[in-house]
Amino acid sequence: MSELRLNPVTREWVIIARERAKRPDDFKGMMPLRRPLPGYLKGCPFCAGHEDKTPPESMRVGDGKGWRLRVIPNKFSALTEEGEKKRTREGVKRSITGVGRHEVIIETPRHNMNPALREPAEVEDIIAIYRARFIDAHRDPRVEHVIIFKNHGEGAGTSLEHPHSQLIATPVVPVQFRDRLLASMHYFDDTGRCLICDVLTTEVKDSSRVILDSEHFTTFIPYAALSPFHTWIFPKRHSASFSDITGAETKDIAVHLKNLLSRVYHGLNNPDYNYVIRSSRPMDAGNEYCHWYMAVVPRLTKTAGFELGSGMFINTSVPEDDAEFLRSVNVPEN
Amino acid sequence: MSELRLNPVTREWVIIARERAKRPDDFKGMMPLRRPLPGYLKGCPFCAGHEDKTPPESMRVGDGKGWRLRVIPNKFSALTEEGEKKRTREGVKRSITGVGRHEVIIETPRHNMNPALREPAEVEDIIAIYRARFIDAHRDPRVEHVIIFKNHGEGAGTSLEHPHSQLIATPVVPVQFRDRLLASMHYFDDTGRCLICDVLTTEVKDSSRVILDSEHFTTFIPYAALSPFHTWIFPKRHSASFSDITGAETKDIAVHLKNLLSRVYHGLNNPDYNYVIRSSRPMDAGNEYCHWYMAVVPRLTKTAGFELGSGMFINTSVPEDDAEFLRSVNVPEN
Repeated sequence: MSELRLNPVTREWVIIARERAKRPDDFKGMMPLRRPLPGYLKGCPFCAGHEDKTPPESMRVGDGKGWRLRVIPNKFSALTEEGEKKRTREGVKRSITGVGRHEVIIETPRHNMNPALREPAEVEDIIAIYRARFIDAHRDPRVEHVIIFKNHGEGAGTSLEHPHSQLIATPVVPVQFRDRLLASMHYFDDTGRCLICDVLTTEVKDSSRVILDSEHFTTFIPYAALSPFHTWIFPKRHSASFSDITGAETKDIAVHLKNLLSRVYHGLNNPDYNYVIRSSRPMDAGNEYCHWYMAVVPRLTKTAGFELGSGMFINTSVPEDDAEFLRSVNVPEN
Repeated sequence: MSELRLNPVTREWVIIARERAKRPDDFKGMMPLRRPLPGYLKGCPFCAGHEDKTPPESMRVGDGKGWRLRVIPNKFSALTEEGEKKRTREGVKRSITGVGRHEVIIETPRHNMNPALREPAEVEDIIAIYRARFIDAHRDPRVEHVIIFKNHGEGAGTSLEHPHSQLIATPVVPVQFRDRLLASMHYFDDTGRCLICDVLTTEVKDSSRVILDSEHFTTFIPYAALSPFHTWIFPKRHSASFSDITGAETKDIAVHLKNLLSRVYHGLNNPDYNYVIRSSRPMDAGNEYCHWYMAVVPRLTKTAGFELGSGMFINTSVPEDDAEFLRSVNVPEN
């Protein structure tokens, strides 16, 4: 019989469909063979030497001769920095002008540098840039919320294959963030403790779903993972905002992210995936019931009418099996 | 500048990205050419003559010689009818045994009968079966919620191309339903009126997003459509439950669904889509602030890290333009 599990953070019920479950190995064959990419592509605006093909950069790591990272405004921006934040109310209709920010973080000058195969120090560079841009975006008083995310592969929604991540700063609080905040507040009301801290303690103690546990972070597949290999990286130190991450923590989360992406790359054959940093604003860093974290979601299955219609998920993979599989992947030394 | 619009029913903010917007016509080229399907496929368990390849049927329209519709339990069921509904609570973990129901509605004995090309009377048959199964599933006291949905095409999550829909009856209330209920309750608290009734009045009066308006239903693209051509079919008579639909209404919604699917088929080149019926339980039919409806969602874009991380949507299509386009599609007479 299958089992329904409640994800305490998202409040979503997940049907863990044991009868329909695939073996973790089965997902390996699901990714199309990828053609090898060139180190440099003539038409790619993100490749070294094409700096004039992008809008003027907001930040750079390295110098003119050899930049390692560049941050630029998205050329096809969903939200713009210019203009006034203006609300309209008319009957049941509510709208706000599309002010905010939409940036691209170009993670490397090379076209074919797979994020899973980078050195931890390079990933650390990327995380540090995320933090700098996160803080900078929140300086704009019109901004209510900032999302940092990566789309890897076409199935994860990317349109450019050159390794990059994105930052979107919105003039409203997204419903998903508000719902999670509410769930955490309820839990805090009930217990006087942070929900994420308690989930973390439970997962570390249980250990069956843990992939990597270190001084500052734990990487694990949640008890009620929404989809196969859906993974969370939780900071051990309670803090509501990613802006609050220390140097030692930045170094450590880079090891976790690199380790996880590498296991996913080798174990599941370089699948499409998204990752996202979920965080409160810097000014809310001291909040007792909010706790920032990172989610990594391989895109191995398609959401269908049921997920769309209910917000419930059918996970055809058992979280404990997925974790065991990822732990067992033979990851080559850098 | 783009515009953020609040969907009052889902409470989701949608970025209507005018700058990134495609012309409705551009979506036409996005669907891969589909190979023509045979009327009968040897290996298909849903084709006429293969009735022994499926679990025993729960319902049939027509007779042994010429059935028109069959309802069967899903062979790879996510939830099962046997067993006890049992809750487990342990620390932050909550689980429930996977009891419920998972059915397949085979919409035709023919393999290649595209739902968009059926006669309204045939669609009426299908809606009537949905209603019968919806009521039947809710007779089980372990069932809290029933979703009826259709996945058309691989991009919409279907694994079998023979036209079919599905019913899933769950032992819990999905978070999405609870959230929408809450939004409706807030609105009722505030105004003493049903939110969906008011949205409907607004849309009919405005008319720029309406595709078809008749005695019992209105088909329209919502003001804050979550994705290109995301469409709602709202019943005009206030009722919380689909179980409450009358004969005349069943006939009318069949015309609406057929009309919409046909416009989508001819205008957008037979794209993948999902549809879903969102409804309260039969016993809640009299609820004043709940209102059942149907949603049709063409799958023309991929959700990426931003949607995943925020629950906000970027719609690269303008709802008013989409509605105008669908209205202008030349639909052949049956």
